[in-house]
Amino acid sequence: MKFTQTLSINSLSLRWSPQTNPHLHILDQQLLPQVEQWVPIHDADEMIEAIQKLKVRGAPLIGLSAAFAVAQMAQEQATRDELLDASEKLIQARPTAVNLTNILRRLQDVIRNAVSINMAQILLHESLKMAEEDYELCEAMATHGSALVSDGDHVLTHCNTGGLATLGIGTALGVIRRAHELGKNIHVYVSETRPLLQGARLTSWELQKLKIPYTLITDNMAGHLMGQGKIQKVFVGCDRIATNGDFANKIGTYSLAVLAHYHKLPFFVVGPSTTLDKQCDSGDKIPIEQRDSDEVRGVHGAFGKVEWAPSLCDVYNPSFDVTPASLVSGWIMDQGVYTRSHVLGGAFV
Amino acid sequence: MKFTQTLSINSLSLRWSPQTNPHLHILDQQLLPQVEQWVPIHDADEMIEAIQKLKVRGAPLIGLSAAFAVAQMAQEQATRDELLDASEKLIQARPTAVNLTNILRRLQDVIRNAVSINMAQILLHESLKMAEEDYELCEAMATHGSALVSDGDHVLTHCNTGGLATLGIGTALGVIRRAHELGKNIHVYVSETRPLLQGARLTSWELQKLKIPYTLITDNMAGHLMGQGKIQKVFVGCDRIATNGDFANKIGTYSLAVLAHYHKLPFFVVGPSTTLDKQCDSGDKIPIEQRDSDEVRGVHGAFGKVEWAPSLCDVYNPSFDVTPASLVSGWIMDQGVYTRSHVLGGAFV
Repeated sequence: MKFTQTLSINSLSLRWSPQTNPHLHILDQQLLPQVEQWVPIHDADEMIEAIQKLKVRGAPLIGLSAAFAVAQMAQEQATRDELLDASEKLIQARPTAVNLTNILRRLQDVIRNAVSINMAQILLHESLKMAEEDYELCEAMATHGSALVSDGDHVLTHCNTGGLATLGIGTALGVIRRAHELGKNIHVYVSETRPLLQGARLTSWELQKLKIPYTLITDNMAGHLMGQGKIQKVFVGCDRIATNGDFANKIGTYSLAVLAHYHKLPFFVVGPSTTLDKQCDSGDKIPIEQRDSDEVRGVHGAFGKVEWAPSLCDVYNPSFDVTPASLVSGWIMDQGVYTRSHVLGGAFV
Repeated sequence: MKFTQTLSINSLSLRWSPQTNPHLHILDQQLLPQVEQWVPIHDADEMIEAIQKLKVRGAPLIGLSAAFAVAQMAQEQATRDELLDASEKLIQARPTAVNLTNILRRLQDVIRNAVSINMAQILLHESLKMAEEDYELCEAMATHGSALVSDGDHVLTHCNTGGLATLGIGTALGVIRRAHELGKNIHVYVSETRPLLQGARLTSWELQKLKIPYTLITDNMAGHLMGQGKIQKVFVGCDRIATNGDFANKIGTYSLAVLAHYHKLPFFVVGPSTTLDKQCDSGDKIPIEQRDSDEVRGVHGAFGKVEWAPSLCDVYNPSFDVTPASLVSGWIMDQGVYTRSHVLGGAFV
């Protein structure tokens, strides 16, 4: 997969061929699995809206999509200041995932140093290069992680961390997919991931396409399944890893980590090195995004919109939670699998 | 509350005045909170359907509603054999809650021993007496349990265990309500209780009517809140208690018990003595009802019907799970609060 050679992106959720079509297109993930609709993105504001409305989601994909939105502005002759402003605004689109910041800071360095006349070409190349790197990071994580999956395993995963969330095979779901591709006989339990149902809508959709056997459960069934010995391992993704090994991920991850700990089940977090925040030394310093109450009072998507709770009832709706390093069995990253002693020894500092 | 004196029932979810209206009426709980619709029940088959479709739900209410359906048949001159047959069919309506069996077995004894000419009167009286007992059991549990709630507590509850689920103030929610009535300044976290949303639909509705401060959360947020120190105690109901103290309750209860244990939070189960199954010595012998896959693939109710998951995806949908006695801090029953040492000492045998 050499994006820099074809000068285009054609992933499960992002498409752009500047030579034939000026506009970046995203697969609207809020409409999946009922509707597969590709949406053109015309400018940074549209990308910010797409990120905030979760049309584009998944920590690596958010960062790369934002980079492509900036690269597209350069194709349209935006000035250096406009590019820097837009990338600054994009960094604020969502607070928890660090990939967005990491990727755009890297792009800003390039913007500052590039010769103006070559800006469009340089930013396109840099964005494609980061996408290519993301693809390769996924491959490396899948290689390391799939070795931890045994024939016959029933694994649990949360939210969506596959080809929809990255420019490659995925993070946690990539590990599971690679184990399946290697011929291991595995079965996946997918927690639906309330409130926005990324497990029920997106992970189910990916696993169905990949013909990997899976069973959908509600989030509150995970403990019951573990207690019955029906789950052997847990694999989740992450939005930000602190240098002490704590990490933020979709709400519900922390509960799964505690449940896995109680049942003595291996609990693995999977994330590329771009998810590591060297500036953050502890999970309690990771900002947690609070989202709209209506997301908890009901659901809406391409499948329809319903509200079941009393309409003005008070709601708490953090989009993420933080899992401490003490509950993690291993950090599956592109460089390899880190154990707790690696992390305590300062591997992430 | 002397049902036997007024010869009628008028609770939050059940109404019957045989002298003025021949038909038992239930509040259709599948339609709450959007629609408050009272539905007449004409015979045992309609009651079985109402129970299986969760129009009537909550372990104590199910048992008593079934008893009233039999008493109503007696008013309509059913024979002794017809009454015994109908009560036997009603016992099979749902497998997990033991109250249904306990209540109908008691009624069957009365049916066998009653003089035919007095059957209608005797069964009406016995059903009203059991309803009155349920009311009093709730009062006793509320008295014992509310003493365990402290001023300033944030308590978590699951599913619905209030006036909708019993003929009285409720079990776990009754304890919480009584603490509020006693002037304690408390706040309730309500877990939505997927798949059928009894927390979001019913407990919210009850707390709103009672003006008790509450916040609705998705089931997977409970661990995060506990980790942040935002929950002090957990109170849940039960559908069957084994003599070793294990108990079955709504799916998700076991996860909450493990999470409370990890965070060293008191975890109380609240149930009347009619929920104790003296024939069952261990939780692993409690039958767990499996329900339809469509309940997990989406939601439906008076608020509408949507399906978000791929339509034929495999689903696991146990309606209940079992929590072992080792995770319980106290069993709040009508006779008082049992500790683990009481239970280990044979208090339930």
